[in-house]
Amino acid sequence: MTRLDTPETSSASRKATISRDDLIAAALRLLGPHRSISTLSLREVAREADIAPNSFYRHFRDMDALAIALIELGGRSLRTIIREARVRVRTGRSAIRTSIETFMEQLYADERLLHILLREGIVGSDAYKAAVERELRAFEDELCIDLVRLSEAAGKPIHAPALVATAMTRLVFAMGATALDLPRERHGEVVEQLVTMLRMIMLGACELATQDDRSAVS
Amino acid sequence: MTRLDTPETSSASRKATISRDDLIAAALRLLGPHRSISTLSLREVAREADIAPNSFYRHFRDMDALAIALIELGGRSLRTIIREARVRVRTGRSAIRTSIETFMEQLYADERLLHILLREGIVGSDAYKAAVERELRAFEDELCIDLVRLSEAAGKPIHAPALVATAMTRLVFAMGATALDLPRERHGEVVEQLVTMLRMIMLGACELATQDDRSAVS
Repeated sequence: MTRLDTPETSSASRKATISRDDLIAAALRLLGPHRSISTLSLREVAREADIAPNSFYRHFRDMDALAIALIELGGRSLRTIIREARVRVRTGRSAIRTSIETFMEQLYADERLLHILLREGIVGSDAYKAAVERELRAFEDELCIDLVRLSEAAGKPIHAPALVATAMTRLVFAMGATALDLPRERHGEVVEQLVTMLRMIMLGACELATQDDRSAVS
Repeated sequence: MTRLDTPETSSASRKATISRDDLIAAALRLLGPHRSISTLSLREVAREADIAPNSFYRHFRDMDALAIALIELGGRSLRTIIREARVRVRTGRSAIRTSIETFMEQLYADERLLHILLREGIVGSDAYKAAVERELRAFEDELCIDLVRLSEAAGKPIHAPALVATAMTRLVFAMGATALDLPRERHGEVVEQLVTMLRMIMLGACELATQDDRSAVS
């Protein structure tokens, strides 16, 4: 029996109805930590979800629509970081350290949604790359609001907060990508490195604001 | 005639000897800006180089050996950035701006060697990822030497120069990856953003060194 025959012959045991989330879960199981979305076929996802290929279309127009849904889930996982950071900062913890710790937790969460953003942003089709870029920008917009709020609360203006948000996000992502392959016991090291890096960016942005100020006066 | 037949039927016109560089050039033509190395087959590279598949082994043990050679070439392209920056800085130009301009030139150079580093660092096999990491670290080591030299010349110590070199390199790479898909006329924008970002990191590192100093005294 060839592998392609399997879904046909096992159709007796196939589920009658499955949800959109079941299909997403099936795709995530197949992707694992290394495969890119473009290597997934509709037939394969249907088989993993234990439905007839045609039932796929009840939930998604095509595989590209499923891919965009996965990328958007990755974006939601990112926004968790901001939400968590806001809660924890209220308990007096450092905003930078808290955000990075939450990022690392999300990076290694079971669903590995952040991996999808990391991977498809580099090797995805143009549509996938654009979707990743949208999610990163949405995150950066939220981060920018928080940076301005924190800097006002501290009475220390920062230069170009939107650029600071982009620099922080892209650097954490890039370092996160290399951290993916490190053993768990070395994550603490990466957290410390990132904390120092983001502090440098933040201090530098304050310093540049002071220089802006001086040149405005002179 | 199927495509696979072509090399066999055209063998009369095949080159008798080709160099290692010819094989590398053939692989680079096939890769273009989007394909990853793992999708290349030995047969395909041999066909593109117009040699019999067996002749491939005169130059490389296997496709993995060719892949590592391509990644090392990417590393050489990176080191060009440092060399160029050293020359141009002597003419009194800003080291940060010069380095970023050279990076962008290399990024869009015909061979697109930096794309290989960007892509294989994320989606390559473990061996490819490790090779990319080696090239990036070699670059960061050289950059670190220059940062220390510049900071000593300016009489402004910097905190954790190795970490500064890593932050700068990874951020430029990450921003470069998103710049790849931008039209050429927007590269200037990316250069300006990166210049400001790296200035923030540099200023922040100097500021942290001042704080180190204060705590050493107190």
